[in-house]
Amino acid sequence: MQINNTIMSKQLRSRFVKNAAGRIVPTVVNGIPVIPFRGVNKYRPERLMAAPPVRSCVDYPSDGNKLVKNLKEALKKAGLKSGMTISTHHHLRNGDGLTNVLFDTVKSMGVKNIRWYPSASFPCHDYLIKYLEDGTIHHIEGSMNGPLGRFASEGKMKGTGVLRSHGGRYRAIQDGEVHIDIAVIAAPTADAFGNANGVNGKSACGPLGFALGDSEYADRVIVVTDSLVDFPCVPWHIQGNNVDYVVEVDSLGDRSKIVSGTTQVTKSPDRILIAEYIAQFVEESGIMKNGFSFQAGAGGINLAFLLLLKERMKARGVKARFIRGGSTQYLTEMLEEGLTDFILDGQAFDMEGVRSLRENPNHVSTSPFTSYNFHGKGNFASMLDAVVLGATEVDVNFNANVVTHSDGYLLHGIGGWQDCLSGKCVILAIPSFRDRVPIIVDHVTTLCGPGEMIDVVITERGIAINPLRQDLIKNFSNSKLPIRKIQDIQREVFDICGGAPQPKRSAKKNITAIVQWVDGTILDTVFSTTPNTD
Amino acid sequence: MQINNTIMSKQLRSRFVKNAAGRIVPTVVNGIPVIPFRGVNKYRPERLMAAPPVRSCVDYPSDGNKLVKNLKEALKKAGLKSGMTISTHHHLRNGDGLTNVLFDTVKSMGVKNIRWYPSASFPCHDYLIKYLEDGTIHHIEGSMNGPLGRFASEGKMKGTGVLRSHGGRYRAIQDGEVHIDIAVIAAPTADAFGNANGVNGKSACGPLGFALGDSEYADRVIVVTDSLVDFPCVPWHIQGNNVDYVVEVDSLGDRSKIVSGTTQVTKSPDRILIAEYIAQFVEESGIMKNGFSFQAGAGGINLAFLLLLKERMKARGVKARFIRGGSTQYLTEMLEEGLTDFILDGQAFDMEGVRSLRENPNHVSTSPFTSYNFHGKGNFASMLDAVVLGATEVDVNFNANVVTHSDGYLLHGIGGWQDCLSGKCVILAIPSFRDRVPIIVDHVTTLCGPGEMIDVVITERGIAINPLRQDLIKNFSNSKLPIRKIQDIQREVFDICGGAPQPKRSAKKNITAIVQWVDGTILDTVFSTTPNTD
Repeated sequence: MQINNTIMSKQLRSRFVKNAAGRIVPTVVNGIPVIPFRGVNKYRPERLMAAPPVRSCVDYPSDGNKLVKNLKEALKKAGLKSGMTISTHHHLRNGDGLTNVLFDTVKSMGVKNIRWYPSASFPCHDYLIKYLEDGTIHHIEGSMNGPLGRFASEGKMKGTGVLRSHGGRYRAIQDGEVHIDIAVIAAPTADAFGNANGVNGKSACGPLGFALGDSEYADRVIVVTDSLVDFPCVPWHIQGNNVDYVVEVDSLGDRSKIVSGTTQVTKSPDRILIAEYIAQFVEESGIMKNGFSFQAGAGGINLAFLLLLKERMKARGVKARFIRGGSTQYLTEMLEEGLTDFILDGQAFDMEGVRSLRENPNHVSTSPFTSYNFHGKGNFASMLDAVVLGATEVDVNFNANVVTHSDGYLLHGIGGWQDCLSGKCVILAIPSFRDRVPIIVDHVTTLCGPGEMIDVVITERGIAINPLRQDLIKNFSNSKLPIRKIQDIQREVFDICGGAPQPKRSAKKNITAIVQWVDGTILDTVFSTTPNTD
Repeated sequence: MQINNTIMSKQLRSRFVKNAAGRIVPTVVNGIPVIPFRGVNKYRPERLMAAPPVRSCVDYPSDGNKLVKNLKEALKKAGLKSGMTISTHHHLRNGDGLTNVLFDTVKSMGVKNIRWYPSASFPCHDYLIKYLEDGTIHHIEGSMNGPLGRFASEGKMKGTGVLRSHGGRYRAIQDGEVHIDIAVIAAPTADAFGNANGVNGKSACGPLGFALGDSEYADRVIVVTDSLVDFPCVPWHIQGNNVDYVVEVDSLGDRSKIVSGTTQVTKSPDRILIAEYIAQFVEESGIMKNGFSFQAGAGGINLAFLLLLKERMKARGVKARFIRGGSTQYLTEMLEEGLTDFILDGQAFDMEGVRSLRENPNHVSTSPFTSYNFHGKGNFASMLDAVVLGATEVDVNFNANVVTHSDGYLLHGIGGWQDCLSGKCVILAIPSFRDRVPIIVDHVTTLCGPGEMIDVVITERGIAINPLRQDLIKNFSNSKLPIRKIQDIQREVFDICGGAPQPKRSAKKNITAIVQWVDGTILDTVFSTTPNTD
């Protein structure tokens, strides 16, 4: 829902501006001045990168043994104090057992007002709500999937959440926007020097790229592992030369949940139809040709799309140059069957992904630096020929939302979604309604991706091509695919569902979170909402 | 030769101080204030790392294609101006054809007074003397092997050379001590995005680690390749995300000289004896045990030592955890025969080294950051159980010289030599004289390594253990090895050669170069010398 100036109090107006996307955003977040979104590719940074203090080998053990007895000791040595920023990564996903223990330890040390800077939080972290309530954690900057998002949405978090994409998170560290005092890196394998990877060990999770920026720029870096090996731990996706302390623990978490193992191809006929439309679209558009590249996530539609695309590639004798993960068995099979030269992988979604990454030199670990950092000298994302993404909402101008539902609840992170919008053909694959709530709306509840970057919306009721892509529209003028105007699809779904989604209830006074664009400017505001009592 | 205050002019004295090693060093080098050596592990940096400007994808091609038509165009786009610093790496060794072309291009653009910051220069670069003479190149900061060293030694270079170890060079970049305006990186394989490695392509040379710091911190980075491949170039030892421009050329140089192919085991009986002493010493000291580690270079003595050690390891059933390269076939055979778990390799000295690095996941590419950076959170060098190094001179206090000859000529670089001194047992393996010049002297001509860091000197006439290592002396009290006092060996050699080496002729007015310690402080001065006319 577009926020209307007239419904905003004077007090709010005085601290808010309308940005280039027409969204109302604050100019100060958690006490720090921020820059409103200026338009796609319009903001150029004029600053130097963060400069960590120069260290010296004089202050590190010459035998390379950085082991300390436990996490508390490491935090103490790292100089943990109230008000600091602690970062964690989410490669252990919903199996992460370390972060809860970490904040138990922080709490036991009497430390307060921590800014927690995870690359994402998961339902397993609902345990931390008590620390948000008692002031141990001041606020979260990072995606809040599920319970923590619900907690924040109801206005209960002290500070304002800052939602960044994976690339945006790396960028914020690199740019010095977020200074991490202490990075705590769960490492499925590590040596006592701090070299670490995620491909070996009992808690193997695949890449560790989400912790790369943390390891490079944090003042102090603590590696925690449940599989300590002799130096050298190879490959060293995290480099011991950036690590201060190493802690050995019995377990990093629940292995069965670290890689979900629940990546399932959709069985819904509607979603299979969407997958078929995508595959057909990718072939008919000419994207599917020798040497092409694409990215598709691990959702049910995407996996179905992969299987269908694979058949088409085989039938036409087409080989990709690279496919971007998150990896699953569906991707690794394509690599092993010679349908792609490389998988460039940011995270593993199943054990086959982990195994392949460990064994196959053409399955390559990537990081938000290589793939997504908008403040680098280019990145991988913009080179992709096709990207298939999801969304919670899209509007008739192709603007899309990926973090909130139409009821205003913030329940999802941005992930690499915004970063991927720079791909050459961005396809949103979405069912036209969910739980009788239409997905194509007049105005998205929260703007995460500017419409000009989204090329195609594919639903089970038809395919809408962004009018900005006249080349694609022309290309499909004689197609048998159901190419339709987005408004037509919207109207049909409104008829089925009984109109537009219920507007969210919100006092529009308190901010739950702000959504950054990939360049660090403020794209939109998530206001706190009262719980729906319908 | 120790410089005596009394022989120095007042003018010199006013600009020089005696450092903690008792050596006379300038306080200003090339117009920049410097810090005299304060003693081993005595200097602690208090500064922040270099902070490169934040870039934006807005300014880079979204398709990842950074190709420009030639080197001149790339230098122009990079904003080349007189007085800038240009860096290169030396992985192509004496086969490097690019650097000469680079400075032809710089000259053709009318640019002057370049500070050239190579990781090393080789005899093939004597071509550049004309550019040192005509002012295109102001001075060289980097090792000057052979002709360029001779040129500088004779006082002909405009500025002062700065000699740093491999680790010191990385450190200087990281610390912001040397700001590189433009890095020109010869890449045996690269893609148009700038990802590059040295293990593939017709000019394959092995690792590219010497260019790592350059790629991370230079304002502009130009990758030049004679083997352009489709994105992604894997492995990406140089990351395209740090690269501005890519240039394709026909050839990077003379392949036959890129990896020398001349790494030969010594045939000299004296040197074989030294190798036998080292192997016996390493075994008897207890260093050679399961899980141990060592580093030995590619010189003739070292290769003989490797073969002898290998036999001893086999005989005792001992396996190393890791061996540090420069790699050769002798190392790769040990890896392949299961005598070590890993080779951690900084440069390849023969084609077998390159092949193994490309094919064997346990042959791992390292960089001066991982291995040698003294201003990191530790590095690999100090973890080594034994290191075998050479020297041009060693004195009776175990101080050693690795850059100048006794006649004062600067003819060698430091390489990783200083960095390796932090190993647990540092062994200098040296013939007791060369060309009738005794190697054990009263005072080294140039101090490169403080005696307190050198544990053992092994010559064909006996083994001297540093009195600081009473543990070792005790350990060898009943050994059959010829353990002797260093003064005894010296005296014997003086008797053979007719006394101490001729003192160098030097006006001691002009500085050829200064020798940095690994922490960036100034360890010693190389004064210009008049040519010997004996």
